[in-house]
Amino acid sequence: MSRKNKISAGKAVVLLSGGLDSSTTLYLAKKQGFDCYCLIFDYAQRHKKEIESARSVARSARCKYTVVRISLPWGGSSLLDVHRNVPLASDRSEKSIPSTYVPARNIIFLSSALSYAEAINAKAVFIGAHAQDYSGYPDCRPEFYRAFRKAAAHGTKSGVEKKGIEIKTPLIMKNKAEIVRLGVSLGVPFELTWSCYKGGLKPCGKCDSCYYRAKGFKEAGMIDPLIRSRK
Amino acid sequence: MSRKNKISAGKAVVLLSGGLDSSTTLYLAKKQGFDCYCLIFDYAQRHKKEIESARSVARSARCKYTVVRISLPWGGSSLLDVHRNVPLASDRSEKSIPSTYVPARNIIFLSSALSYAEAINAKAVFIGAHAQDYSGYPDCRPEFYRAFRKAAAHGTKSGVEKKGIEIKTPLIMKNKAEIVRLGVSLGVPFELTWSCYKGGLKPCGKCDSCYYRAKGFKEAGMIDPLIRSRK
Repeated sequence: MSRKNKISAGKAVVLLSGGLDSSTTLYLAKKQGFDCYCLIFDYAQRHKKEIESARSVARSARCKYTVVRISLPWGGSSLLDVHRNVPLASDRSEKSIPSTYVPARNIIFLSSALSYAEAINAKAVFIGAHAQDYSGYPDCRPEFYRAFRKAAAHGTKSGVEKKGIEIKTPLIMKNKAEIVRLGVSLGVPFELTWSCYKGGLKPCGKCDSCYYRAKGFKEAGMIDPLIRSRK
Repeated sequence: MSRKNKISAGKAVVLLSGGLDSSTTLYLAKKQGFDCYCLIFDYAQRHKKEIESARSVARSARCKYTVVRISLPWGGSSLLDVHRNVPLASDRSEKSIPSTYVPARNIIFLSSALSYAEAINAKAVFIGAHAQDYSGYPDCRPEFYRAFRKAAAHGTKSGVEKKGIEIKTPLIMKNKAEIVRLGVSLGVPFELTWSCYKGGLKPCGKCDSCYYRAKGFKEAGMIDPLIRSRK
C-alpha cells in the first residue's frame, strides 16, 4: 500500500508543549496513522520560546495546530512568576514536588483537549506525560490518568453516547533515554524542540529540565542536536 | 457569638455563572462559613449578560471574584455559536443531550477552579450542578463528580501531600423548586441572576433554561423577582 493510500486511524488531538516528550508523542501518533490536531497553550508561562518551538514542530510534522490562551491569574508556580527562581538540578530533592509544578495544569490541558476532541469528533487525545525522571509531578503518574479516563467517560457526551475519547499516554512508563531513542527512530526534529525552563538563545544547562534532557541524550548515547546547533 | 467573630471554615472557590443554581451555591457556601472566592468564566458564550449577572451576585454577596477568559475556538455548541438556534423547551426530548451542551465544559471549569484553589490554599471548590431537570448534561451527574474527585486527588499536589481539595456539589440531587426554596431562605438576590440562553433586556421565556426556571418558581409557589422586576 502506498503512503498516500494509508488508512487513517481517525483524528487525534495532541497536546504539544514544544518539548522533547510532546514532540515525540506527536510523531508517534502520526506514525500510528492518526490525523493529528495539535493543541498548544499560551498560559503566560515565563517565556514564549516553548510556544514558538511547538509551532515549529507542528509545522515540521505538517499538522494543524491551535494556540489557546488561558489566564491563570492566581499563579502558584515558579514557571508562571519571573520573580521566582526555577529550581536547579543541583539543589532539589528527588522526592519533593518541584516549585515548577503549576496547580492542576495537566488536568486543565487534558480537559481542553477533550473539549476540542469532542468538537471535531476525534477518537483520541495524546499527552506525552511520563512518570520516570520528573516523578515529582503528581499529574504525570499512571494513577492520575486512570482516574481522569473515568471522569472523561462519565462527564462527556461522547463518553455517554459512544465509545468515548481515548486518553493516550504512550510515554508514561518510559525514561528520558528511551524517549530520545524513540524520537530519533521516528525522525523527531529535536533541534526545533525546547526544554529549558528559561528562555534565551540557548538552554541554561542548569535547570531541572535541562538536566534531565542532557541525562536522557547521554544515556541514549546520542548528541542533542539543539545543543550542537547552538554552540 | 457575634457574626464578626464567626469562625471561618476556610477558603473556598465557587464557580459562579450568574444563574440561579450557582448563585444559590455561593450563598450556601457563605452560610457554611467559607471565605468565598468566585470564579467567573468568559468563554465567548453567546452573550455577556450572564457574566454581568455573576459580577453583580458576587458583589451583592460581598465576595471576591475573578473573571477568567478562555477561548474554545473549536465551538461544538449552540451556546457558543450565534448562528445556531438554542433549543426551545417545546421541541426537545427529555432524554437527549441538548445542543447547548458545551464539550467538556464542567471539566474545564472544575480543573481551573482546582488550580485556583490550590494556588490560594483553599479547602473546597463549590459547583452548583444538579442532576435533576437538566439531566441531559453528562457533566451534571453524580457519577461524573465521583470520578473527578479521584482524578483531582491523584493529580494535584494538595491531593498527594495533604487532604486535598473537596469538590462540593450541594445541589446535585435537588430539583429546581427545592433550589428556589433554598435560595429564598438564604436571601439570594434572584433579581440579579440570569438563566436565559439568550441575552437581551428580559428573558425570552421560551428556551429550555427559561422553562426550567419558571417551572422551579411555580412548583416552589413563588414569583420570580427577575420577571416581576422586568415587567
